[in-house]
Amino acid sequence: MAGCCAVLYAFLFEYDTPRIVLIRSRKVGLMNRMVQLLILAYVIGWVFVWEKGYQETDSVVSSVTTKAKGVTMTNTSKLGFRIWDVADYVIPAQEENSLFIMTNLIITMNQTQGLCPEIPDKTTTCKSDANCAAGSSGTHSNGVATGRCVPFNETLKTCEVAAWCPVEDDAQVPKPAFLKAAENFTLLVKNNIWYPKFNFSKRNILPNITTAYLKTCTYDAKTDPFCPIFRLGTIVANAGHNFQDMAVEGGIMGIQIKWDCNLDRAASHCLPRYSFRRLDTRDVDHNVSPGYNFRFAKYYKDQTGAEYRTLIKAYGIRFDIIVFGKAGKFDIIPTMINVGSGLALLGVATVLCDVIVLYCMKKRYYYREKKYKYVEDYEQGLGSEVDQ
Amino acid sequence: MAGCCAVLYAFLFEYDTPRIVLIRSRKVGLMNRMVQLLILAYVIGWVFVWEKGYQETDSVVSSVTTKAKGVTMTNTSKLGFRIWDVADYVIPAQEENSLFIMTNLIITMNQTQGLCPEIPDKTTTCKSDANCAAGSSGTHSNGVATGRCVPFNETLKTCEVAAWCPVEDDAQVPKPAFLKAAENFTLLVKNNIWYPKFNFSKRNILPNITTAYLKTCTYDAKTDPFCPIFRLGTIVANAGHNFQDMAVEGGIMGIQIKWDCNLDRAASHCLPRYSFRRLDTRDVDHNVSPGYNFRFAKYYKDQTGAEYRTLIKAYGIRFDIIVFGKAGKFDIIPTMINVGSGLALLGVATVLCDVIVLYCMKKRYYYREKKYKYVEDYEQGLGSEVDQ
Amino acid sequence: MAGCCAVLYAFLFEYDTPRIVLIRSRKVGLMNRMVQLLILAYVIGWVFVWEKGYQETDSVVSSVTTKAKGVTMTNTSKLGFRIWDVADYVIPAQEENSLFIMTNLIITMNQTQGLCPEIPDKTTTCKSDANCAAGSSGTHSNGVATGRCVPFNETLKTCEVAAWCPVEDDAQVPKPAFLKAAENFTLLVKNNIWYPKFNFSKRNILPNITTAYLKTCTYDAKTDPFCPIFRLGTIVANAGHNFQDMAVEGGIMGIQIKWDCNLDRAASHCLPRYSFRRLDTRDVDHNVSPGYNFRFAKYYKDQTGAEYRTLIKAYGIRFDIIVFGKAGKFDIIPTMINVGSGLALLGVATVLCDVIVLYCMKKRYYYREKKYKYVEDYEQGLGSEVDQ
Repeated sequence: MAGCCAVLYAFLFEYDTPRIVLIRSRKVGLMNRMVQLLILAYVIGWVFVWEKGYQETDSVVSSVTTKAKGVTMTNTSKLGFRIWDVADYVIPAQEENSLFIMTNLIITMNQTQGLCPEIPDKTTTCKSDANCAAGSSGTHSNGVATGRCVPFNETLKTCEVAAWCPVEDDAQVPKPAFLKAAENFTLLVKNNIWYPKFNFSKRNILPNITTAYLKTCTYDAKTDPFCPIFRLGTIVANAGHNFQDMAVEGGIMGIQIKWDCNLDRAASHCLPRYSFRRLDTRDVDHNVSPGYNFRFAKYYKDQTGAEYRTLIKAYGIRFDIIVFGKAGKFDIIPTMINVGSGLALLGVATVLCDVIVLYCMKKRYYYREKKYKYVEDYEQGLGSEVDQ
Repeated sequence: MAGCCAVLYAFLFEYDTPRIVLIRSRKVGLMNRMVQLLILAYVIGWVFVWEKGYQETDSVVSSVTTKAKGVTMTNTSKLGFRIWDVADYVIPAQEENSLFIMTNLIITMNQTQGLCPEIPDKTTTCKSDANCAAGSSGTHSNGVATGRCVPFNETLKTCEVAAWCPVEDDAQVPKPAFLKAAENFTLLVKNNIWYPKFNFSKRNILPNITTAYLKTCTYDAKTDPFCPIFRLGTIVANAGHNFQDMAVEGGIMGIQIKWDCNLDRAASHCLPRYSFRRLDTRDVDHNVSPGYNFRFAKYYKDQTGAEYRTLIKAYGIRFDIIVFGKAGKFDIIPTMINVGSGLALLGVATVLCDVIVLYCMKKRYYYREKKYKYVEDYEQGLGSEVDQ
Repeated sequence: MAGCCAVLYAFLFEYDTPRIVLIRSRKVGLMNRMVQLLILAYVIGWVFVWEKGYQETDSVVSSVTTKAKGVTMTNTSKLGFRIWDVADYVIPAQEENSLFIMTNLIITMNQTQGLCPEIPDKTTTCKSDANCAAGSSGTHSNGVATGRCVPFNETLKTCEVAAWCPVEDDAQVPKPAFLKAAENFTLLVKNNIWYPKFNFSKRNILPNITTAYLKTCTYDAKTDPFCPIFRLGTIVANAGHNFQDMAVEGGIMGIQIKWDCNLDRAASHCLPRYSFRRLDTRDVDHNVSPGYNFRFAKYYKDQTGAEYRTLIKAYGIRFDIIVFGKAGKFDIIPTMINVGSGLALLGVATVLCDVIVLYCMKKRYYYREKKYKYVEDYEQGLGSEVDQ
């Protein structure tokens, strides 16, 4: 036959298989099977069953809405008797994945643009105009210094600033928190998740939840683990913190919703798991810059059209809804990758046993004679060939 | 030669290769090649070409800005003739990945802190003071009960509350939606994406889009698939819902921007794909807690300095811009992993054919004699050696 | 022994190992070891040491709070002398992962609901009522057209609209930026990250940062790379842009915090890396729709209870805090996958050397005789057996 037809014929119609030495030894045989069994147990047990190595995974895409409910009243000399409802303490009224509830505040009313003395501290107390640099404003200033040193009260003099006057005095944070009753407010969290790769979506208000149940339930880790209405005090307590402590200087609470779904099972098994974690502080020893606060103002105009405002330094708890999770579904590629790797690992059993048989056992020279066939380089002559 | 030099010499200068039995059988040879071809086709065709198994992937990091445009007017007895523009219906004025457009509202004007009767319902109607528990406030209360039962109108009496008075009556949601013309408003979405691993970034306003085009275009799935200006009604319709229905109680619409990019190709092939999905409700049968609304207030002060407010329960559609996607680029590691797994899988062909040749074919005993060499344990004597 | 006991005995107590031909050739032996060494170097060096192929990875879950500080003053004929502090230029006062700082604005004061002429442009100038379509409102209209053509000033006539009057004239953006001193404002970013798979969390305010240091430090890439207080001008400069240019029309700046952590090392090695990138524009040539702005209003009521407002078109820089990163920790599964793939790749060395030995070298026919044992089909007779 012509050259390349012969090669093709050989390629297609010949089957090559390695020649094997079968050593009948109970010790070695058993050891070999045990190592192979261990590898198989690892591949099947851990990789496939435990870690679900046969599945393709996808990350969650999520959308969240929140709604707070609760009313409280306060009675102080400064503000008088006052009711606080949702429009008063949720700032801003609407956000995407979080909700801020004001629990404490420092309120400075009727501020107008003008000139007034700064609040006394290390950098602002002065004796004469020389101590105040005109036009400067430090990082913690309320305004721009005019350069004059003016009386703050009978005893102290501070640098005068152009600012919204009177300036805010935030030295004393009210303790206990002003809106301490916020502990009993409730928060409804509605969460819709989607796994794009598998086109699977679900809401955290599960199909079996009725309107009647939703009107009265409150989340409890044991009795109502799927009720999406959370009492604020419970959220903080579940994270291991005290609400009243946290309410004074504010903080950030994470409401974590974990959606780990095995989409090879029914959709009803894909359920949200709620957990709570305080996000703003790591440990007591390194408690630098604790709490959470920001300033906002309500603007008004008087009869003359002049603008004045109420400045509020709001301390409170921001609840961040953190949704995460993975879905898994059977897919041929990760399965094959793991099967392929598993097969390659089985080769380790052979390598290991070879080492023992050919180098460690008493009969190793005998076995080597059976396994190996030594071939010298051709030029060194046929006479040196050792063949067995 | 000394012991370990000999071992080193053997290690470096000897080449070991398995001894092979070449069986000339058309049937087995062909079957072997076919199994190997199937495995090769799977590895090359599916793993490498279809699933791009030679690529490293990275998830998108995104930034979004939005801007709504549109004006409408309403004429009611309560509010009179009124124009609504962007500053009136987008609340809050600026958010990171979403935009809320108010489409319906319940407005309670001139609320002041005071005492007034609650809105009548199952829990608030009363006959005498005994029915009202002082200091309590239910989950759906507008204020804190004083303990008195006062007339709500000529026929009904309800518990008196300390609250922002008069309390809001949200029993009747306006139908059709108050700002129904919002269907024609437009939304410009600007999105910048970045794949950190490959340091590749791109905007959804593509390089070929001119200012003139941007001033007049509107997104259409067929004619203008890359125009980033969306008409609100079109967004809702593309998700399979009716805008006017949705506008009454509000809802959440997801504008999904998918960036799946193959960075082995030119950057111009990396394009955004827009899709739309309603996020707030799963199905009609389980439609608990539908829609989306929140309350906010505008605060004013009268001449005496007393504060009063307008409470607005805003129903509307929140448009969440959800950006997701993966970029892939050739990388040696996933390539090698898949090549390695593929090579290991080729071994399956040999295992399979071995089983057929040595256990199923007519000539199996003959082939076994050729493949195997039985070696007994040494002690059992040289006489039992069967060698071929 | 009974049939299946024999099979079981054979299975458990026999050990099979391939028969090997050991070719003593320096050339081939050395080449084989070199190819194996290359493969080993790739697997150990690149896959395991460089790419950390022995680690399981997890993506970061993050929570961010921001706080701006800074005061500036302006003096214009329209607004007079005015101080701007945090409550004035941060809008809205609180957001989850970003912060908007107004740097420039167009202010339209004392707008009331009414009828007034539109701002003149191509679509609004008119000669008679016929040019104005009643009830229409274009995409860029300030209101709904009444159908009348009224004088805008002595020379021009424009279509009359029902709108908040007087309408806003945003043709001229103030240049330089109105609040240009915002360049010196500072931004404190507090970031808490968590890797759920490894239950590892950390703050960007590192354990060694004291309150005293935090009160005075400012981020610098070389001297203070872990101070979380950023000067706005520095952020923009580090991204390669000019703050004053950006402040005129606004823009989006990304503050990227990268947490790549090797959790096999001590937690103190897990540190945040800050980088800055401008997100809103790609290149000068394709600079369509630059900058970032939005409109918001402050609402007031006069003595009669009639509502009026101040409309502000706010241009400014939105700082998006983008937190990303991966943590890696040793895990047996990715290790085994890569070990398995590596072992399979070692087989490539044998394949390659076989090809050279059996097809390229001078002594190839001799080596082939040693390696292969040809077995014809049984029927073709024992006589054709060639055995070596």
